[in-house]
Amino acid sequence: MKAGPSQEEVRQQNLGALLRHVHYDGPTSRAELATRLGLNRSTILGLVGDLTAAGLVREELPQETRRAGRPSLVVKPESTQVHVLAVDLGVERLAAALIGLGGVFLDRRECPWPSGHPQDPAQVVAVLAGFAREMLDGAPAGSSCIGIAVAVRGIVRHPDGLVGLTPNMGWRDLDFAGAFTERLRLGVPGLDVPVLVANDANLAALAEHRRGVGRGTRNLVYLNGEIGIGAGVIIEGELLRGARGYAGEVGHMTVNPYRGRPCGCGAHGCLEAEAGERALLEAAGRDATVTGAEAVRSVVTAADRGDITAREALHRVGDWLGIGIANLVNVFDPDLVILGGTLRDVFLGSAAQVRSRINTNALAAVREHLRLRVGELGADTVLIGAAELAFTEVLTNPLETLTRSASAT
Amino acid sequence: MKAGPSQEEVRQQNLGALLRHVHYDGPTSRAELATRLGLNRSTILGLVGDLTAAGLVREELPQETRRAGRPSLVVKPESTQVHVLAVDLGVERLAAALIGLGGVFLDRRECPWPSGHPQDPAQVVAVLAGFAREMLDGAPAGSSCIGIAVAVRGIVRHPDGLVGLTPNMGWRDLDFAGAFTERLRLGVPGLDVPVLVANDANLAALAEHRRGVGRGTRNLVYLNGEIGIGAGVIIEGELLRGARGYAGEVGHMTVNPYRGRPCGCGAHGCLEAEAGERALLEAAGRDATVTGAEAVRSVVTAADRGDITAREALHRVGDWLGIGIANLVNVFDPDLVILGGTLRDVFLGSAAQVRSRINTNALAAVREHLRLRVGELGADTVLIGAAELAFTEVLTNPLETLTRSASAT
Repeated sequence: MKAGPSQEEVRQQNLGALLRHVHYDGPTSRAELATRLGLNRSTILGLVGDLTAAGLVREELPQETRRAGRPSLVVKPESTQVHVLAVDLGVERLAAALIGLGGVFLDRRECPWPSGHPQDPAQVVAVLAGFAREMLDGAPAGSSCIGIAVAVRGIVRHPDGLVGLTPNMGWRDLDFAGAFTERLRLGVPGLDVPVLVANDANLAALAEHRRGVGRGTRNLVYLNGEIGIGAGVIIEGELLRGARGYAGEVGHMTVNPYRGRPCGCGAHGCLEAEAGERALLEAAGRDATVTGAEAVRSVVTAADRGDITAREALHRVGDWLGIGIANLVNVFDPDLVILGGTLRDVFLGSAAQVRSRINTNALAAVREHLRLRVGELGADTVLIGAAELAFTEVLTNPLETLTRSASAT
Repeated sequence: MKAGPSQEEVRQQNLGALLRHVHYDGPTSRAELATRLGLNRSTILGLVGDLTAAGLVREELPQETRRAGRPSLVVKPESTQVHVLAVDLGVERLAAALIGLGGVFLDRRECPWPSGHPQDPAQVVAVLAGFAREMLDGAPAGSSCIGIAVAVRGIVRHPDGLVGLTPNMGWRDLDFAGAFTERLRLGVPGLDVPVLVANDANLAALAEHRRGVGRGTRNLVYLNGEIGIGAGVIIEGELLRGARGYAGEVGHMTVNPYRGRPCGCGAHGCLEAEAGERALLEAAGRDATVTGAEAVRSVVTAADRGDITAREALHRVGDWLGIGIANLVNVFDPDLVILGGTLRDVFLGSAAQVRSRINTNALAAVREHLRLRVGELGADTVLIGAAELAFTEVLTNPLETLTRSASAT
């Protein structure tokens, strides 16, 4: 049984709440913060003082003001001074960004990276450490990198970040965080912050929940399509991880066990075998080895132009997608299902079919208030989510985190 | 953004933590409580004082002591003085119990109640109000009923408890809590505590998590079989409710959409259509209109004795059950799946088939540490869960709750 927090813990919680507020909602006056957090003004004054002294926020005149009279100072996050490194081991590309408190992209790097395996982790790590060094060298003097998070296409154990399996890289049971940390220390001496690793769909869910179409929605499912299908699930505002971090493997939910297509996992009739990119491309008579956003979009475009085969393919995949979503809706009762990755285009091209299946297969009470939306953060969704993960610690324990961070020179 | 708690809220949290400790773990010395809660002894002394003054705990000599020397006083819950009313609108029976703090059954009543619909809620309410009055009349002088919770077979909106649909009673959008409250006030003047209503599988999950085979397991799925199949899911120690309270409708997860059996919900190939009692009984060549524990057990017994049809029926249903569990395991990554209700017997009779399907259909990393167990609380599981729900408020805000409770005379 967990006892209540100590006075010091309460202060940390208040500091975290205030910092989260300006991180997500932007510059805010002290008076407004007092109202939003339900704390009195003198407490707010003290908290802002502590966060300012720690270099996490500053007070300044607002850039725009609509009201007459002397404008109040606003508290804003020190976006250029406090940042994290977000890394995305994508399908066909490696990407990294330096993202400041408040979610501001300060710098970014990416390069094409062909899928195929097994890949040498050392090569991947070398490229990313190069990106990191370049961006940190270019960061403002005196700024601090306070966290690093890496998104991988695969299953990742929580909390240690062991990468269980990554189909695009061909890795199994790899301590990617360890390898990356070691290489970073060589390239960027003094950088001593933990490297977190997480699944891409989980991070995309986090991104859309905190900064995208899912803002303000406490229960949502983010369904991500690339070659496979994965989900990130937000329950009461928190990411569902499961006992070991593997929750959300909805692509391997069996929906068609006896007549189903074979799946890469060894089973038949998994959702991703029926509704993934390959299923769509094959049904549309395309080369199913050339997957990706462009290939999917070309099927949707062809269907729009009246191509019967493309239409039937979308109809078929939309049907399975609707069954998959209905299952998740019956299980989770979310307010919102977000379609991301290439499922965005699949959904836009088959929305009627998807909705019709949900109407048949989800219980009336559960589907009644359900909203279906496409993700709104675009190609950077996963990087934004990785940054949010890397910021988690400072947003929870602001002062403790900062004493452990590394300063750029 | 939620700010940290006030000093008063911290004190409430500590009181709650202490009370939860003795509620679940039984009589405990103050020294042990200090260790378990990480609070100093003088704080514990104060908390125990407050809870004693409120009549929630008492200190006394332990009933047994194994060590030599003067035994320490132990803090124990006031089980006979502080109780809740737990009600179960079961399949074929109505049951109610008066359950004391610490989970002690003080009194109970039940009667057969044939399924069939639509039923007059007023009749059900009248029987239960009669049970309540009898038990409260017999409760110790000066004792208080501090909560009431009702389990229904159906979907229940959270937090207002509106009963969306109950197949066994034939109710739709019924304010059962309102009807029960009104009737209780007539029968038991002065009883002014809220009536909570919840789904039976959710309450069974809560019961097994707090007091059964799921104790100490933070992520679990409780799969309940009666005529239908439902689940209660515990995530990080908390019950998954979903946006409106409808989460866990796993019986309507589609697993066999094109060749599947019709389901009561209107769809085809739902898990409960393939693995529910009727599917088992039909496959075994029995009368599928006579469902229930006895009918299911007779199939399992026949299979044990070598009846080929019964064996094949169990094999088939076990196969679907395995697919359903594999899906839930891929989605939730739990430590433990508990089989309850008649799925207990189905699982015991088909465990090899269930496990074999899970091995095929669940990802290796996810199933690796999974445990499958049958529920251990028996026929009272749902009543125990209802009591836990009714105790939630006092275990969270002990002193505030008590001032609102009613005293027996």
